[in-house]
Parts: sequence; structure tokens; C-alpha cells
Amino acid sequence: MRIDILTLFPEMFEGPFNESILRRSQENGFVEIVFHDIRDYSQDKHKKVDDYAFGGGAGMVMQIEPIALLLDKLKSERSYDEIIYMTPDGDRFSQTIANQVSLLNNIIVLCGHYKGVDQRVRDYYVTREISIGDFVLTGGELAAAVVVDAVVRLIPGVISDETSALTDSFQDNLLAPPVYTRPADFRGWKVPDVLLSGHQAKIDQWREEQAWQRTKKLRPDLLDEK
Amino acid sequence: MRIDILTLFPEMFEGPFNESILRRSQENGFVEIVFHDIRDYSQDKHKKVDDYAFGGGAGMVMQIEPIALLLDKLKSERSYDEIIYMTPDGDRFSQTIANQVSLLNNIIVLCGHYKGVDQRVRDYYVTREISIGDFVLTGGELAAAVVVDAVVRLIPGVISDETSALTDSFQDNLLAPPVYTRPADFRGWKVPDVLLSGHQAKIDQWREEQAWQRTKKLRPDLLDEK
Repeated sequence: MRIDILTLFPEMFEGPFNESILRRSQENGFVEIVFHDIRDYSQDKHKKVDDYAFGGGAGMVMQIEPIALLLDKLKSERSYDEIIYMTPDGDRFSQTIANQVSLLNNIIVLCGHYKGVDQRVRDYYVTREISIGDFVLTGGELAAAVVVDAVVRLIPGVISDETSALTDSFQDNLLAPPVYTRPADFRGWKVPDVLLSGHQAKIDQWREEQAWQRTKKLRPDLLDEK
Repeated sequence: MRIDILTLFPEMFEGPFNESILRRSQENGFVEIVFHDIRDYSQDKHKKVDDYAFGGGAGMVMQIEPIALLLDKLKSERSYDEIIYMTPDGDRFSQTIANQVSLLNNIIVLCGHYKGVDQRVRDYYVTREISIGDFVLTGGELAAAVVVDAVVRLIPGVISDETSALTDSFQDNLLAPPVYTRPADFRGWKVPDVLLSGHQAKIDQWREEQAWQRTKKLRPDLLDEK
């Protein structure tokens, strides 16, 4: 899988993408992540990439020209399954969408900043708009990082023990049951006896009950989808 | 506002928190963000911080001891309004929660990794559990970065032009209207005439209509909340 990320702040991805699973998945060839600084495609002598909104109002808008030139170049080099724009009014990102995207070959992720990109970029280039939730971020960079992280870990082979991803929350529309590790007693706070019993059938049953109870209490809407 | 972030991967925050608004808000004293490496509080000679789950199964669980020692230390130094744990089964993060949190003085944000933290940390320390959505990430770090970004930009003074935040999506339960900037004509793709008319009342009316139409089409649930 190849992921091209278009942003005004490529440095924002340095920390998240150089750690842990995202770093190893790139080193091991499961995914190629390529960053593009939109500013490099500005035709303005001051490398300007944004301007005031037509019609007035606070906040800057990202201009279409640099983004269009960059997208044209990428599209001339290979074919892309999706050009995704991160925006608060996009489709709500979910584990289902993460599963879908993890099956694609080449995708572009466009990060907006300030008030977002000129609407014509969305009308003429973008094929899918994704939101990670009903809140406003400084820019699309963190949202893009979230999407890439959720997607990459689903690519077969990325997580060494595949069952680890399969037993996460949401893969079966249930929240995960509580987890405990050593010590069994910390300041008198104890691990449930059943988990120490060694009786695997009872443990599995307890976990299933806990997952159901937790889901019913915290997220009954998930049970409706089952 | 002071935000203490507890994580096994402090480096993950380097990019996002050294750019743009998050950097300036720290430099200008609006917020103090302090990172703590949970591994520094491991009492194990190999600096171990996780172990297998009681009852078996794939994935590692973060142990209570290092987290408890770190939390005890912080709580002895100052009083905290909330100890927030980032977890997929927490309360769904929203602009409303961002507004609430932006009014607090001192908060702790605990990032889980692997299968998450020992349940006793949640039972005995955590005061609020927040999820950024129904998807699974490598760890809580990106989710914490998202929450901090959304919160910090709401602190008065952080965004120079305050109206810029106030006209974002969700602050009034409406999606933002489309935005355009120069050029007015790009490859024949034109900006709506009204935005070039100079007639502010008409422009405001057009924007309000667009915001309503977009919300009605894409997110009718938001209108129910109005």
C-alpha cells in the first residue's frame, strides 16, 4: 500500500510516524508513506498557499492552484483508488471504513489547514471526505495521522500477532472486556479471581459477559448494529 | 492551563506539538504541556512496563505500578481537575467536551498502548474516559494529541482572531459553509457570483443557507440537537 500525504506541515508527522508500529510497517515494506509539502507547488514568489476568503470573514483559505498542480503530478505517475480529504463535515471515520481503506493500493490524503481548502478542490478532485469526529482541529494533519494509524495496523502482517487486532474493540461491535496484568494484588486492589483460576472456559465466558455488559452500559447503539 | 501527558512514547508528540498553534500557545504562556515517560517509573531492572494479561490472550497490558507511582507524584504536587484516560470505550469526544475541558486548570491525560492499562488504573485513578471515535489506534497518543489540539485552540487568546474559532463547524451545531479564495476562475472552475458581489447581506444569507443545506444533507442529526 502506498499513502501520499499532502500537507503544509509535513514536520507534524515526524513524531507519530517514526514510532512503534508505523515505523516498523514502513521499514518492513508493508506500507510506503510519502509526504508532500503543498508549499513546494506554490507559483507565488513568496510561496504563498492561502488567501482571504471571497466574501470576507475571519480565517484563511488554502488556494486551489498549488494543490491542483501537486495532485495532477501524482495522478500522472500512478492511479489512485481514493483522494481523501480530512474535514469535520466528512463521513465519520470508523473501524468499518478503516477496514475498507486498508484493502486499497494507492491513496492520497489531503490535509486542510486554517478554514480549509478552496471548495473547488473538493468538487473536482476529492473522491472521499472523512471526519474523525465532531470537533475542530488546528488542521487535518492529526486527523490524517489517526486514519493512517488505524488503517496501517489492519494490513495483514503489520501487527505480528494478528489476533491482537482481531480482539480489539469494534471488530465485532463489542467493546473489549477489562484487562489485568501483574501484580494480582496491588495495594489491596485485586484482580478478579476467575482470571487467576486457570479455567479457560470460565475465563472466556467471563470476558464475553464483561464485553456485553460494558457495551450495553456504555454503547448500547453498537448492539443495535449487530 | 497545565496539561500533563503520561505516555510510553513521548517522542510521538514532538511533531504535532512543535508546530503551528500548539507551539505558539506554549511559547505565549497560554498552556503548559508537560510530558512524562511512564517507563521512568518502572521499578523493574529492565524497565518493564507491561506484561501478559491474566487469563491469557494476545496483546500486552500496561502494569498499574509505574502509572500509580507517577500519578501519586503528580497529585502530591498540585490538584488536578481531571485524570483523563484515552480509550475507545470512553465518552465520545465532541466540541462540547472540548469547550468544557478548555475551562479547566490542571489536567492529566493518560495514553494507553497495546491492549490498554490494567483495569485497576481506570477504577482507582481515572476520573474521565474519552474516545475520539469507533476505531482502534496503535495507542492513545494520537488521540491525546487530537484532544489537546482541539482544547488548546479554544483557550481565549490562543487563536489571534477569536471569531475564527467561533465560526468553525459545530460551534453552533451547523457545518461550515463552502469557502473559496483566489483566483475567482481556475481552469474555468468558478467561484459563486454572490461571493464576488460585495453585497455583505446577500453573502451572509448565502452562507447561512449553504450551512443549513450542507448540514441537512450530510448531518441531519446535528439539526435535531439545535
